[in-house]
Amino acid sequence: MSKGLPKRSEDYSLWYNELVKRADLAENSAVRGCMVIKPYGYSIWEKMQAELDRMFKETGHVNAYFPLFIPKSYLSKEASHVEGFAKECAVVTHYRLKNAEDGSGVIVDPEAKLEEELIVRPTSETVIWSTYKNWVQSYRDLPLLINQWANVVRWEMRTRLFLRTAEFLWQEGHTAHATKSEAEAETLQMMEIYAQFAEEFMALPVVRGRKTASERFAGADDTLCIEAMMQDGKALQAGTSHFLGQNFAKAFEVKFATKEGGLDYVWGTSWGVSTRLMGALIMAHSDDNGLVLPPKLAPFQVVIVPIYRSDEELEAVSVKAKELMKSLRAAGISVKFDDRDTQKPGWKFAEYELKGVPVRIAVGPRDLENGTIEIARRDTLTKEQFELSSLPIEQKIAALLDEIQTYIYTKASQFKGEMTTEVNSWEEFKEVLNQKGGFLSAHWDGTAETEEKIKDLTKATIRCIPLNRKEESGKCILTGLPSEGRVLFAKSY
Amino acid sequence: MSKGLPKRSEDYSLWYNELVKRADLAENSAVRGCMVIKPYGYSIWEKMQAELDRMFKETGHVNAYFPLFIPKSYLSKEASHVEGFAKECAVVTHYRLKNAEDGSGVIVDPEAKLEEELIVRPTSETVIWSTYKNWVQSYRDLPLLINQWANVVRWEMRTRLFLRTAEFLWQEGHTAHATKSEAEAETLQMMEIYAQFAEEFMALPVVRGRKTASERFAGADDTLCIEAMMQDGKALQAGTSHFLGQNFAKAFEVKFATKEGGLDYVWGTSWGVSTRLMGALIMAHSDDNGLVLPPKLAPFQVVIVPIYRSDEELEAVSVKAKELMKSLRAAGISVKFDDRDTQKPGWKFAEYELKGVPVRIAVGPRDLENGTIEIARRDTLTKEQFELSSLPIEQKIAALLDEIQTYIYTKASQFKGEMTTEVNSWEEFKEVLNQKGGFLSAHWDGTAETEEKIKDLTKATIRCIPLNRKEESGKCILTGLPSEGRVLFAKSY
Repeated sequence: MSKGLPKRSEDYSLWYNELVKRADLAENSAVRGCMVIKPYGYSIWEKMQAELDRMFKETGHVNAYFPLFIPKSYLSKEASHVEGFAKECAVVTHYRLKNAEDGSGVIVDPEAKLEEELIVRPTSETVIWSTYKNWVQSYRDLPLLINQWANVVRWEMRTRLFLRTAEFLWQEGHTAHATKSEAEAETLQMMEIYAQFAEEFMALPVVRGRKTASERFAGADDTLCIEAMMQDGKALQAGTSHFLGQNFAKAFEVKFATKEGGLDYVWGTSWGVSTRLMGALIMAHSDDNGLVLPPKLAPFQVVIVPIYRSDEELEAVSVKAKELMKSLRAAGISVKFDDRDTQKPGWKFAEYELKGVPVRIAVGPRDLENGTIEIARRDTLTKEQFELSSLPIEQKIAALLDEIQTYIYTKASQFKGEMTTEVNSWEEFKEVLNQKGGFLSAHWDGTAETEEKIKDLTKATIRCIPLNRKEESGKCILTGLPSEGRVLFAKSY
Repeated sequence: MSKGLPKRSEDYSLWYNELVKRADLAENSAVRGCMVIKPYGYSIWEKMQAELDRMFKETGHVNAYFPLFIPKSYLSKEASHVEGFAKECAVVTHYRLKNAEDGSGVIVDPEAKLEEELIVRPTSETVIWSTYKNWVQSYRDLPLLINQWANVVRWEMRTRLFLRTAEFLWQEGHTAHATKSEAEAETLQMMEIYAQFAEEFMALPVVRGRKTASERFAGADDTLCIEAMMQDGKALQAGTSHFLGQNFAKAFEVKFATKEGGLDYVWGTSWGVSTRLMGALIMAHSDDNGLVLPPKLAPFQVVIVPIYRSDEELEAVSVKAKELMKSLRAAGISVKFDDRDTQKPGWKFAEYELKGVPVRIAVGPRDLENGTIEIARRDTLTKEQFELSSLPIEQKIAALLDEIQTYIYTKASQFKGEMTTEVNSWEEFKEVLNQKGGFLSAHWDGTAETEEKIKDLTKATIRCIPLNRKEESGKCILTGLPSEGRVLFAKSY
């Protein structure tokens, strides 16, 4: 199965595309730019959803559902929002088909034209704030802490499975608050939840940062983000959390009676992560043999493969395998027992390597005699003979899964460290960017002009102004003008 | 809050609409026919989803995700499917907006016209079977047991919250099998899962049945369904499971190498339930005071309302309430403690009655003295003083929740029994239909013509041929022609 997977060092982009398809994660559909998320890929997404949803609810958020369609005029209500989103989008203009008179199939019925076109939501601020208008009268109605899990559509011209697709799945939180400080705290909290999720579950270390003004969400006063480093030295924005100020409240006239008896516009935030996280997960950890999945998000954490030559051997081995499976499941470890007789063990080994199953157990007749099993780790590709009498199997595997989760995180974290370089001159900037890639920590004069110029010259953008950066006066690498601290540049997905 | 809720006996339809809005379940959006599912309503849907998803997975199904858009030509590939679905639907014709030259806002860019229009999925058979074509080569690739949770759009002209909306949420299962009998067994299994879900979780008794040929899903060889009875004597189709034969396999050329070395078309099924179940749940159990929710689907099962006059009293009562809450939560019972000081207890009582919270506990200073609490049931609207020393609170409430779940089901079941009438003549049919409504169990000659004629004359349709009907020869109520058994007629949603 993994035979022929391109090598990362030769063609990282091809390696990614092939891996996504061969590991049964997703594929392109017949509809341009739209993907099919296959069951194995979707079950990873379900695990992500479950953890994020739990984290959202623990911080007081509830889920709701808002319409797929947005009246065209809504997009125009918030001035900068329309610039950002009312461009490449799917436009519904008609509501009926009819049979073609020549019998050639169905055609759009010209008489069923909508008075106002509908846009398939690229994001839901407008439709949600138009709804909030009716939900908020008094400070007693605040805060609104609402999230939705939904599909959205942005008509991307160049698409890539998970990373950039016309339709994608995501969650979008939209909150409304009585005070600026409360909304700012919410913005920060949600970025921190994304960072924790990435680090704890995806084993993906991230930089917590703030976008520059030109990289902000269209309609936001401030955008916080988490940025991750991929193995090819490119950065990937993994989640964003926006402080919307009173922009959408003003656009949709959402006012409330304050405790003090006044009338004020509501303060807002929005925040989202998408199936793009799947792309980040795949690219951050996988190798030339296939996927490497952190145990906390693996569809199944352990696979048991029986080794046998005869039906009798299979039967004897299966008894042992089922016993192991029972012990592991009782301990909350997910296990698959692959006793298919249509494939050989070697084929199965390659298959589960490709699919990134964290732990593989092999049991054969000799193991039954010796009271052993073979345990293989996907992350390090190492194997060991394990004596079953030495430790209860569920303790052994639980500890191993923890170790793998930590190992993957640590490896990615070291890589991110190695791939973050302080540069102090324009020459150095260009050289490091082209030779090594990664994050370039450099001084910048704070102007959009310089930011734009560096992007034009090098394709590197300011990924973020790290939240934990130290104040350090310096000189802009391009202009030499004064700077208050370093920002992170990188080429990015 | 419940003041002014219309009475069911006066205007059932208005009662339903008002209840849905006032209980914070859903509301109409600015986009015609599309609803906003509010957090309280959505949390009931989430509970439905969780149980159904568990039942699907326990029977070997996995989730995946297919595109929102369907190329127009796909709809034409299955002849009867196109008749059923390629009519009222949302059609995407363009992929870009641009700024109007007169500055009036954004307009559709005429240069961004799609070569082939895209339909927002009304159901996904076509896009899924076009994908299955690539996934199935051999009998080893079968069965495919895949479900998706998704939004779909059918451009309904007359919409009603939850019952009939242009966009709705649902799950759609799409399975592919090597044999006819396996696909038929799957069709039956999924109908049975829907029936069990309705009865066990929604406390909604249903008739398991088969649709007549004219009521079948467009593209199916057989449609099984569950039908429920609402309080106004109208039936509601709550779920359907379709045996697709080889129709979609033939339309999309999905063939497989059989075990025996031949080549055959794949057999298919599809099955779905939607947010329509919310409508069924609301209409089946609720009363003139508001919602009545079965404990197994209630967002929270118990609400604790403190009774107090001073801050000191609130503090003392809160200590007790939190203690109760802790015991209940430890036993897996969901509880809300409403200590808002902005509303009076009487207001809260009415609010939670309207919202259908199964059990309400009130605790006041006198209760603290006496070691009692007041427990009120939403279903029967009865109250009792409960001595806390008599039984651990979690045992008391757990038993009470079971009792409520059973009571609601039994009540609905008795009602369904009373509302099912055997009729044996055309006069009787018309009289019962107009005076009493409900299910009319009657003989029918088996022809589509008679079925159509009865529908034209009375608006009653054949809801289903019950699966458990006894063979009984009789004469068609309209034509007098011979019949092999009774079918169920009703007016319906």
